[in-house]
Amino acid sequence: MKVGRRETFNSAHRLFNPAWDDEKNFEVFGKCSNPNYHGHNYVMETWVEGKIDPVTGYLMDLKELKNLIRSEVTDKFDHRNLNLDVIEFKDLNPTAENIAKVAWELISTKLPKHLSLTVRLWETENNIVEYSGE
Amino acid sequence: MKVGRRETFNSAHRLFNPAWDDEKNFEVFGKCSNPNYHGHNYVMETWVEGKIDPVTGYLMDLKELKNLIRSEVTDKFDHRNLNLDVIEFKDLNPTAENIAKVAWELISTKLPKHLSLTVRLWETENNIVEYSGE
Amino acid sequence: MKVGRRETFNSAHRLFNPAWDDEKNFEVFGKCSNPNYHGHNYVMETWVEGKIDPVTGYLMDLKELKNLIRSEVTDKFDHRNLNLDVIEFKDLNPTAENIAKVAWELISTKLPKHLSLTVRLWETENNIVEYSGE
Amino acid sequence: MKVGRRETFNSAHRLFNPAWDDEKNFEVFGKCSNPNYHGHNYVMETWVEGKIDPVTGYLMDLKELKNLIRSEVTDKFDHRNLNLDVIEFKDLNPTAENIAKVAWELISTKLPKHLSLTVRLWETENNIVEYSGE
Amino acid sequence: MKVGRRETFNSAHRLFNPAWDDEKNFEVFGKCSNPNYHGHNYVMETWVEGKIDPVTGYLMDLKELKNLIRSEVTDKFDHRNLNLDVIEFKDLNPTAENIAKVAWELISTKLPKHLSLTVRLWETENNIVEYSGE
Amino acid sequence: MKVGRRETFNSAHRLFNPAWDDEKNFEVFGKCSNPNYHGHNYVMETWVEGKIDPVTGYLMDLKELKNLIRSEVTDKFDHRNLNLDVIEFKDLNPTAENIAKVAWELISTKLPKHLSLTVRLWETENNIVEYSGE
Repeated sequence: MKVGRRETFNSAHRLFNPAWDDEKNFEVFGKCSNPNYHGHNYVMETWVEGKIDPVTGYLMDLKELKNLIRSEVTDKFDHRNLNLDVIEFKDLNPTAENIAKVAWELISTKLPKHLSLTVRLWETENNIVEYSGE
Repeated sequence: MKVGRRETFNSAHRLFNPAWDDEKNFEVFGKCSNPNYHGHNYVMETWVEGKIDPVTGYLMDLKELKNLIRSEVTDKFDHRNLNLDVIEFKDLNPTAENIAKVAWELISTKLPKHLSLTVRLWETENNIVEYSGE
Repeated sequence: MKVGRRETFNSAHRLFNPAWDDEKNFEVFGKCSNPNYHGHNYVMETWVEGKIDPVTGYLMDLKELKNLIRSEVTDKFDHRNLNLDVIEFKDLNPTAENIAKVAWELISTKLPKHLSLTVRLWETENNIVEYSGE
Repeated sequence: MKVGRRETFNSAHRLFNPAWDDEKNFEVFGKCSNPNYHGHNYVMETWVEGKIDPVTGYLMDLKELKNLIRSEVTDKFDHRNLNLDVIEFKDLNPTAENIAKVAWELISTKLPKHLSLTVRLWETENNIVEYSGE
Repeated sequence: MKVGRRETFNSAHRLFNPAWDDEKNFEVFGKCSNPNYHGHNYVMETWVEGKIDPVTGYLMDLKELKNLIRSEVTDKFDHRNLNLDVIEFKDLNPTAENIAKVAWELISTKLPKHLSLTVRLWETENNIVEYSGE
Repeated sequence: MKVGRRETFNSAHRLFNPAWDDEKNFEVFGKCSNPNYHGHNYVMETWVEGKIDPVTGYLMDLKELKNLIRSEVTDKFDHRNLNLDVIEFKDLNPTAENIAKVAWELISTKLPKHLSLTVRLWETENNIVEYSGE
């Protein structure tokens, strides 16, 4: 059994590989590498897999999961510039793939060990990424 | 290959463990244990896995799946109080997890044996549960 | 110019005219008059019409509108039984129409007089009501 | 890790087994076998599974995936009659199952071999199909 | 006060002015004039404006409005070819505009005279039309 | 009769009144004034009101409306920093209200005079603005 929680955050970012000059970055990332940044309303589904607790009928209290997502991810990412304000992207290109991976790692560290985790991230309504730790 | 069908039902419920007093229930379940009940528009995706029938091009006729979901689940749950009106929750706390599990069991019993089943239930647009029978 | 804010609340209710017996209520309201209540995830759009403030660029700060909606409406209705727990429906049938009207009145009282108000309420994804004070 | 791309196409179709007469087709497929066709706004999610490229931070550039989906599938299906205009359904009933399977095969042929593919197709907002090649 | 009801229908159509040859039709309507038809999942919101009945708390029973929409519009349009199967489009181009206008006229005829009517039609998730009788 | 077209753009912005220092800006705009910017997936509905052309059945060809929106607004705003890259916001705070007003003015200039225009803008799924030129 799995339970999932949907949260959102609004951030600016720029796709950029510092080993390349601006021309090469534009060639690979197109308008996504605009030096002045652009932004998204990211939608993130966080899924936890485990067993129902027979006492509460919960797999995990979704209020606790919400608080964990907020303290570890959305409070850090929301209304920020991912490249400039978020330490995890200091040397990491903030593609949707890397954002999902970083969110997975931040939540995973605080999650009870008997639960497994999947993060699904919508960058736009058409572009989606999913990460389960491997 | 999988086919899925989306159906909805509107029900009242209250999270409540009868082994606890009201204070303890409020401590664990918060406002979800309001004694006068609250309610949801539940959205349920029912997924069936199997092979395409070469004669019809169907895995399973989605009209038949719809009828099965309605007769076994939504006709019983819709416009009801899950705690008071639905026999399956007489001694079972109607969390999203348990509702998904009960729906899975009710549909599973009537489904041809060569098909496997998953139920995905949205309690709100942010809280989701998925159950595949294990 | 108009600004709108979307908020949600989850409530139980029952359609019921106390001047009628149960049979007559069932005849008019059908399964919506189930004596043990059913429930909905209500979605409410609150629209305010006025002019842009040239200093802030806001018509009205949407954080303030959000706080007003929460204190006047959703904190009172969410995770409640509208018939039993909400004073405004003590003698008023909680149809979608009346819920929108009550929400309009509660917000309207606290809104600056130069702004006009519209409330749009989804009871389900198919049933919608809109009220502008007349 | 998986990345997904959502695209849409609008097509006419008719469910029809040429080995049967019209009566038998109507008995099995109901109004979906209307001889003059009906139609849908199909929504298709295309998912690709693999590893992040450390140089770009991409699993696969979603612009490339979009171009592949458009050239192989949506440019061929969009604003067409699937039964009459699309060669793949000349002798194949265009059920949602078969459309997903054909789309999977068309995209799969052009996809780098180290990536695995899933196609999820919404025929309506309630009827969904998913295919992963087996 | 207004109440609205959302219903859907799935139809094939072709944009076509019989006074023009195929070349001229293609020039004006592009791929929408494909001779073999294409199709859509139309979503229609039907809005009725009036006053709350103090006895029921309803402006109009939405079950009655649903039945009216179905008998007058969606039962006639759903799983049909609008050009070939629906009498109203025998000499009328089935653009989204004309479909909304025809639906408005069909419903309007059967609606109590003290209620005013608006039809809002989504041809795709991006193309929308609204008609209020003038 | 009205026709509407939905388009999206992804931009960075910062709420900021240059007449104030950073402290005052933070006091009024909160986290929306983060100096390194944040961003949104803006969704914009553009509505045009007029009469059906009896020759085409169109009020206005939605392909033309789409092209107008793209050339005047979304090509200029998409994947840009509104404060730094868009000339219209050089001395204008890019609140949702001002973005809707600027979009209205840009489109309005190119629209045939017999058509009236409304712009509806979602900054997030909860915050919405509508502007009709007054």
